[in-house]
Amino acid sequence: MENQQILIDRLPTGKLRANDYKVAQAPMPEAGPGQVLVKTQAFAITAGTRAGLQGSASYAGAPAAGRVMNGTGVGEVVASNDPTIQVGDRVTAPTGWQQYVAIGSEHVTVIDPNHNPIHYLGPMGVNGLTAFFGLLDVANPQAGETVMVSAAAGSVGHMVGQMAKIQGCEVVGVCGNDDKCRLLVDQLGFDRTVNYKDANYRQSLKEATPKGVDVYFDNTGGMILGSALFRMNVGGRISCCGVVSQYDTDTPEPGPKGVPGLLVNKRIRMQGFLLFDYEARYAEARGVIYGWLESDRLNSLQDEVIGLEAAPDAFVDLLSGGNVGTRIVRLDQ
Amino acid sequence: MENQQILIDRLPTGKLRANDYKVAQAPMPEAGPGQVLVKTQAFAITAGTRAGLQGSASYAGAPAAGRVMNGTGVGEVVASNDPTIQVGDRVTAPTGWQQYVAIGSEHVTVIDPNHNPIHYLGPMGVNGLTAFFGLLDVANPQAGETVMVSAAAGSVGHMVGQMAKIQGCEVVGVCGNDDKCRLLVDQLGFDRTVNYKDANYRQSLKEATPKGVDVYFDNTGGMILGSALFRMNVGGRISCCGVVSQYDTDTPEPGPKGVPGLLVNKRIRMQGFLLFDYEARYAEARGVIYGWLESDRLNSLQDEVIGLEAAPDAFVDLLSGGNVGTRIVRLDQ
Repeated sequence: MENQQILIDRLPTGKLRANDYKVAQAPMPEAGPGQVLVKTQAFAITAGTRAGLQGSASYAGAPAAGRVMNGTGVGEVVASNDPTIQVGDRVTAPTGWQQYVAIGSEHVTVIDPNHNPIHYLGPMGVNGLTAFFGLLDVANPQAGETVMVSAAAGSVGHMVGQMAKIQGCEVVGVCGNDDKCRLLVDQLGFDRTVNYKDANYRQSLKEATPKGVDVYFDNTGGMILGSALFRMNVGGRISCCGVVSQYDTDTPEPGPKGVPGLLVNKRIRMQGFLLFDYEARYAEARGVIYGWLESDRLNSLQDEVIGLEAAPDAFVDLLSGGNVGTRIVRLDQ
Repeated sequence: MENQQILIDRLPTGKLRANDYKVAQAPMPEAGPGQVLVKTQAFAITAGTRAGLQGSASYAGAPAAGRVMNGTGVGEVVASNDPTIQVGDRVTAPTGWQQYVAIGSEHVTVIDPNHNPIHYLGPMGVNGLTAFFGLLDVANPQAGETVMVSAAAGSVGHMVGQMAKIQGCEVVGVCGNDDKCRLLVDQLGFDRTVNYKDANYRQSLKEATPKGVDVYFDNTGGMILGSALFRMNVGGRISCCGVVSQYDTDTPEPGPKGVPGLLVNKRIRMQGFLLFDYEARYAEARGVIYGWLESDRLNSLQDEVIGLEAAPDAFVDLLSGGNVGTRIVRLDQ
């Protein structure tokens, strides 16, 4: 029995292409001392992992040609050398894009049997936790304030908007097509949306934020960050989560003109964060998020593709905005 | 008797020139109800007022052709319609560039008779208070951390560096000529300095910050901010005070490339502030700063010119980096 994997064939130059990856067969791994062997059932594809492919500039480690592509998955334990983890347990772990992984048990989180494992790739996973801490802890929105979020139909953005609604905020989402805009308003309760590809985007954003913007949750950087700076209110907070507009390129844009002039004039706080700094609080956050899911105050958008081989195309498509919500690759069908 | 004034003759386009101002004579003003009449003894020239001349983009109000140039001064009360302010009191007030000003007493601060009035244009004035709150409140430096400050020989910068030393930090100053660099180390106790005009500036900055930068106090924006971002440590704080590199131009640079990417990767907090938000705490801060002055832990660099007519040239020279410390125009000689 072999272990099917998707390897990085070469690190991308310019835009990522599906043939930067290749399918490979490796020998079936075995769980070493302190390790568990996990059979991957599904993994998430997230824009942030594109940054890792740019090498040392990223926080996600340094992927290299010949390595298994990295990613967070859920799966079932099929062998365990850790007495606290049982065969049959559902777990979430950095499985990578492969059928099986032998991994140190310290990297593995056992999923509460009451919970839906797939939620650990969405609202209770990296994306949901990122939205939770980046919005509530970094930006601290207050009821009645206006919260703007970019990549609003993305895996993090669609949860940021809903969590801001739960806080009693007005929510304005920015995304790249009109169908997504409608979906955010009709299905997820966003107050208003703006398509950044519209020729009159800046005027539309102005109209969508009549009271200005108190909190901007930035998933994109670039032009949308620049437009947000001009709409920020005095005392506004910008939570810097990611730079998706700059991941899939060798030639990043210059920074927004309003930095630092508008930060001074408007006394804006702009703060970057990385989820793993909050690891000690994941369980607490998952408890809160689970309550929101159970009470239907939070809905998870998922966008599934089937089969390991579909992952490279699904990633390229995601980087051009093709996804709605969290993009998940399922292996267990 | 007349009141000599310096008027804005026209708002500058491109770089400020001395002949954007003109000398004028106005009738002697009288103190109206609730006003005091102040005879200006000296005023400070600060880079921040250049921003005001760019019109609405600034926080400093909207100067216009034909108006008296704005600025903070100290002087003596020569007539008073406010029972809490006496003739003969020394005060600080937004006198502007003129010999006399009739001004609402709510804009006037009476100077403690134990204090040296000229300090209210320096360490106990706008510049010193800006350094105090921008460093201690916004950036919160801890003993042992490395603090970097730009425009380090300027009116704010030279106090930021000394206040950081008082907190037990290592201090690295960036300024534009070697004489200033030496002066900061030799006279004010900076640990190291870097001249940003050197061809190998980035390498020199790297060598001057071997443990990275925990706090960057930004007076300049532009290229120096960009260079600081690359030296910041994880968890660093950037206090955004001003953008002197961008004031004296119609064509501001784009923002630094590292925004927001480096903010995310390094979890940097970047925060703008304006001094007047701290007005309720001026007296408290002045008490602390007075203690530092009395114990010689804080030294004020001053750079004086004599006579109202000298102000326009002194301002143009300041914007090209000609000043050392606080530039003061004295009228009382």
